[in-house]
Amino acid sequence: MKLLLPKKVTFTELFARDGLQNETAFFPTDAKIYFINKASELGFQCVEVTNFAHPKNMPQFRDAEEVLKRITRRPGVVYKCYGMSDKAFERAVKAKEEGYGPDVLAFTFSMTESHSKRNAGRTHEEYWRQIPHWIEMAHSVGIKVDFAMAGVFGCPIEGPVPLNRPLEILERALEMGVDSATPCDTTGEASPNRVFEFYTRLREKFPNADVHVAHFHDSRGMAMANYLTAVYAGVTHIETSLGQLGGQPAFIMDGVPGIGTGTNYCPSDIVGNGSTEDALVMLDEMGIDVGVDIDAVLELGRVLEWSLGKELRPYTTKTGRIPKGPTAWQATPPYRRGWWAYPTVSQAHTSKVVEDRRFGEEKQIAEVKRREFANLQEAK
Amino acid sequence: MKLLLPKKVTFTELFARDGLQNETAFFPTDAKIYFINKASELGFQCVEVTNFAHPKNMPQFRDAEEVLKRITRRPGVVYKCYGMSDKAFERAVKAKEEGYGPDVLAFTFSMTESHSKRNAGRTHEEYWRQIPHWIEMAHSVGIKVDFAMAGVFGCPIEGPVPLNRPLEILERALEMGVDSATPCDTTGEASPNRVFEFYTRLREKFPNADVHVAHFHDSRGMAMANYLTAVYAGVTHIETSLGQLGGQPAFIMDGVPGIGTGTNYCPSDIVGNGSTEDALVMLDEMGIDVGVDIDAVLELGRVLEWSLGKELRPYTTKTGRIPKGPTAWQATPPYRRGWWAYPTVSQAHTSKVVEDRRFGEEKQIAEVKRREFANLQEAK
Repeated sequence: MKLLLPKKVTFTELFARDGLQNETAFFPTDAKIYFINKASELGFQCVEVTNFAHPKNMPQFRDAEEVLKRITRRPGVVYKCYGMSDKAFERAVKAKEEGYGPDVLAFTFSMTESHSKRNAGRTHEEYWRQIPHWIEMAHSVGIKVDFAMAGVFGCPIEGPVPLNRPLEILERALEMGVDSATPCDTTGEASPNRVFEFYTRLREKFPNADVHVAHFHDSRGMAMANYLTAVYAGVTHIETSLGQLGGQPAFIMDGVPGIGTGTNYCPSDIVGNGSTEDALVMLDEMGIDVGVDIDAVLELGRVLEWSLGKELRPYTTKTGRIPKGPTAWQATPPYRRGWWAYPTVSQAHTSKVVEDRRFGEEKQIAEVKRREFANLQEAK
Repeated sequence: MKLLLPKKVTFTELFARDGLQNETAFFPTDAKIYFINKASELGFQCVEVTNFAHPKNMPQFRDAEEVLKRITRRPGVVYKCYGMSDKAFERAVKAKEEGYGPDVLAFTFSMTESHSKRNAGRTHEEYWRQIPHWIEMAHSVGIKVDFAMAGVFGCPIEGPVPLNRPLEILERALEMGVDSATPCDTTGEASPNRVFEFYTRLREKFPNADVHVAHFHDSRGMAMANYLTAVYAGVTHIETSLGQLGGQPAFIMDGVPGIGTGTNYCPSDIVGNGSTEDALVMLDEMGIDVGVDIDAVLELGRVLEWSLGKELRPYTTKTGRIPKGPTAWQATPPYRRGWWAYPTVSQAHTSKVVEDRRFGEEKQIAEVKRREFANLQEAK
């Protein structure tokens, strides 16, 4: 008995928008550009780039236009931005007219009134009145509009959200003309049973795959189980952040408190998006084509740790992928922050890779046996 | 469409044996006893207690007999110990004869020859010759024998393990008379697809539920997805460690290197058992009876952080369970290490609990609305 799995799952890399919005220090513009370019080079078909929020509310994105202008566009890659105000839509339209605008502009619509008022400063009805205008603005210059549904599974103020509510809200948004939708587990309140039920109902009600997207936050250790269950339920597009960054807009910015939208989405600062690194490794292990150079992404995750100067939560940047052949007991040097070129275990059984990377332990690792596993196929 | 899930899943708490064996400082005997007693009080039906390894090889367990003598036995709880040598079995038998011995003694049998030689100092054939004697010794005093299968999914030296191999090895062990078995993902090399296939085949070949146990290590962020998939495949007994501790026997002990069995099970020290806290919360959210007082376990997880003096990887000790009702935006104080009585979000909507706990923020939290969710049932 084998699991019935999709052949391919597409990833959106959230790092430069959702990922960075929870960071408490300004991330240099050049660094943002480096990571966005890397993401597109390594195979991500959709990359979040920036947020057109007011720089006073979200100073992390005060360089929105500069980032958009300076990144290297890769043909076929979708560049997505965020905007939730008239001004934001105006800026996106202007950027598009001047040739560096986003392909997709997403705005967040909270599934509860309380979260809507807190997060966007307006009620649902006030919001609904604005949406047609935004869609018109965006479409007039060829920007697609994504309906980002905040708090699909639960709201940090009101508690659990009944699963029929996001479906009703989405129906109305689609009638208004949004091009796609991203149901978001904004605060990490999804559990696998509700994920399975939601995505089953979602796919039944809306056969259009442009709304079958899984976007989880890992506040309670369940993000990987939730992605997996979403895939079991037929989702083939998932959103994750390198370094497991993300969450609420930072309340403290460059050491100054009181910026951002609040202190807590959950009673901890552990509220990042699901980890790109670990999700890629998991789905790849399952034989699913993720369309991305995974070893290079793991290295990029190590560069990110180095760039941010702190250890991040993803596992596979430290432990590498599951070994696919013999490895040398004790020969692989232990993980250290900043070792961006540290070989993954799966690479370590070919001495060539290791020699190329010049560690002190080369000689040991070069002795690794390379005998083939006659039964590797079966082992899989 | 709903997932078909078991009504009940039983947990073994591994903290005091597998959990502690990776710790680099001696954990005080009184603290071990505290956590073992708490685990049995809070509802765990099986608790790992200690290891009869030679104190020179595993100094963490030099107090094995003392721990066994001093814990408070709770009727119905199974107390499991480890032993992998004649001497260990002799000590277990003596303890049993003197009235404080374990109910179950487990020994580890590696699925590959290389790991067997490294971990136990003997080949498979040498091992098979000893087993009947050990079983005889244990059974003579009424100790059950558990066959702990190391590296079911992969070996840190040889790579992936073909899934038929553990099944063949288990068959031989059962023929020899072991009472139960624990297939272990010793180094965190399992992925959900192989987990599903392994447990499906295991249940088909061995209908006896005493071998349907899921024991994962979280080296690559997949442990929760693996537990979940094992449950999907019909497993109803899982093993986890409080604090996500565990893994290889520590190479450094009380600051002295060179103790223990080696430096690495994987190229990182992140090789703990799946987190008890997060696994309990996940399965409970899914409506599965886990038989344990979860809020108290989360508090115990915070006491453990305090005891060890370091932040541990579990999420739900910091973020609490998924809220089940309205919570006060910003009213729940952020997680801090050492706040063992820190209320979980699910409790915070009843002001009584919060008042009882005397935080500075009481007044804020006491204002939390307590209105019932008319649609909570549906929301689930």
